[in-house]
Amino acid sequence: MAAAGKEGRLAGLQERYGALIETELRRALAGRELAHYSLMRYHLGWEDRDGRPHQWFRGKMLRPLLCLASCEAVGGDRERALPAAAALELLHNFSLIHDDIEDGSPQRHGRDTVWQVWGIPQAVNAGDGMFALAHVTLHRLSAVGLPAEQVMAVARLLDEASLRLCEGQYSDLSYEQRLDVRCDDYLEMVAGKTAALMAASAGSGALIGNAPNAVVALFQEFGRNLGFAFQIRDDILGIWGEAEETGKLTGEDIRARKKSFPVVYALEQAAADDRQTLQSIYGKREMDDNDVAEVSAILQRLGAHAHSQKMAAEHAARALHHLEGLDLVPERHRDLEALADYFVNREA
Amino acid sequence: MAAAGKEGRLAGLQERYGALIETELRRALAGRELAHYSLMRYHLGWEDRDGRPHQWFRGKMLRPLLCLASCEAVGGDRERALPAAAALELLHNFSLIHDDIEDGSPQRHGRDTVWQVWGIPQAVNAGDGMFALAHVTLHRLSAVGLPAEQVMAVARLLDEASLRLCEGQYSDLSYEQRLDVRCDDYLEMVAGKTAALMAASAGSGALIGNAPNAVVALFQEFGRNLGFAFQIRDDILGIWGEAEETGKLTGEDIRARKKSFPVVYALEQAAADDRQTLQSIYGKREMDDNDVAEVSAILQRLGAHAHSQKMAAEHAARALHHLEGLDLVPERHRDLEALADYFVNREA
Repeated sequence: MAAAGKEGRLAGLQERYGALIETELRRALAGRELAHYSLMRYHLGWEDRDGRPHQWFRGKMLRPLLCLASCEAVGGDRERALPAAAALELLHNFSLIHDDIEDGSPQRHGRDTVWQVWGIPQAVNAGDGMFALAHVTLHRLSAVGLPAEQVMAVARLLDEASLRLCEGQYSDLSYEQRLDVRCDDYLEMVAGKTAALMAASAGSGALIGNAPNAVVALFQEFGRNLGFAFQIRDDILGIWGEAEETGKLTGEDIRARKKSFPVVYALEQAAADDRQTLQSIYGKREMDDNDVAEVSAILQRLGAHAHSQKMAAEHAARALHHLEGLDLVPERHRDLEALADYFVNREA
Repeated sequence: MAAAGKEGRLAGLQERYGALIETELRRALAGRELAHYSLMRYHLGWEDRDGRPHQWFRGKMLRPLLCLASCEAVGGDRERALPAAAALELLHNFSLIHDDIEDGSPQRHGRDTVWQVWGIPQAVNAGDGMFALAHVTLHRLSAVGLPAEQVMAVARLLDEASLRLCEGQYSDLSYEQRLDVRCDDYLEMVAGKTAALMAASAGSGALIGNAPNAVVALFQEFGRNLGFAFQIRDDILGIWGEAEETGKLTGEDIRARKKSFPVVYALEQAAADDRQTLQSIYGKREMDDNDVAEVSAILQRLGAHAHSQKMAAEHAARALHHLEGLDLVPERHRDLEALADYFVNREA
């Protein structure tokens, strides 16, 4: 089956790059003995809360995979992209540590979040430390032989993306208080919160692979559109996903009154009475089970699930469209297609 | 009088560089319309909480002053150092926004802190945004003509310092729970929390001024020792400073059970009965006025104020010692001496 073939290809991607990324990430934290770094290792799933080594889970490392596969797709040497791949994963994880504080999430991957274990002050600081560590890690690009101009260009991509990420997070938090969020607002928010770092992942890979500027720009657009696809699918899973697969309670994003894509779509599309119901429920301080059921029923009536999935698929197709006609390494091009397919169809 | 002369010289330093730094900082935030950036402008004292422009206070900009004066002291062009100076100020202020959350401080400069106005989630994110903005600002070094190798070297200094800063903050927070903190522990904490960024300020200035590596290293040591002097004096003001000058309540750091230098010194030097009293008071969840008075009396008996001031002065002397024998621009060398003098003798 085509789907099985693509899933097999994703596993192949992780097999191809996973160990390399993990080694580079562990190098970034090696020899850092201060207990401060134990919080980071805990968050990454490498240690328990008492600092005992234990592989709790493996991150999917989607941003590093995107970076390395993009680098090889343009004929580059993946070894030279590894510090950037690790820096991207650290940037993503710094943002998760802070997101968990900002959203008040007590659990991630089925265990307590950093702030839940160590309190907000140390968790804020652990995130800051991981943000700083991402930059320190990036400097290893010089050690693996990249010329300074190229290191600077990669750093600029990642720094601009980090700034956009914070802008998106600002909007996401502020939308919690608003009932008038429209699909355009949502997409602008996701452009920062998710798509910017995905764009930098693909773009930096192509850049390190010595692609010309125009091709780097196309890879950025590829990554940006993948980011939209990823986030919309994430929103779908946040409402309809299975708890055992995502580690989230089904409907949790409804209960948290998140302005995720299906909800924003419903608020925009609903007829007057349904919209009023939605607004009244989303205007409450807390939702009860009846409220969640009522929201679910409205989303169902409006076909919000199917429409959202269609939007995710459209963004993935748009992403791949940016790579059409480029002279890419065929095997790696297929890997990027598999990644896009995974982003849209993943179950967790 | 010598003292007046030196104060005049500090004012002269601010006159020489203040407007340039402010312009560069405002450039970093110019055109950034998202309300996210209003939190940053509020924190910097440029706007009130409703986003209306208003100069609430002027930051002292000590790190930018250190950077620019160091650059000119080695014969460099201050214009080329401006993006680094602004980035240093943004790094410092990102850490203040997060410190205020971590310490639960409701006020800074006599008005509500960012988290107090906008809540912890947006305040965490505003700090992150300012951290990212510091990096984006640093890239303007390329635009003012620095070669990529030099930009990379400056970025490396600042990134390593940021990581050290988070390490120091980890220790500072963890010391709140500990009663066995010794002067060596304290100095190791300050090496990260304060001295690393001061070292990077002086070092980056010298680097941009094209000083040879050995001289850059001496400027880093100069800045590092200034950092110790600054923090010890800060601790003195936190206990004995006048409320109207520091914007802090006198004794506030005692009440907050901070392991600041005079307290750590007292814990280390006190005879058995005084130490037991201190440990019992610092082991409480909250101090009352009697506790604060008792701690003050013990500090007084041990001469903690005078000893702390002596340590601050010694670090400043050590700082200046690192510059001896270098072929510096005489006027700018005297500016650096004035800065050191200010660090040790400031009243706020």
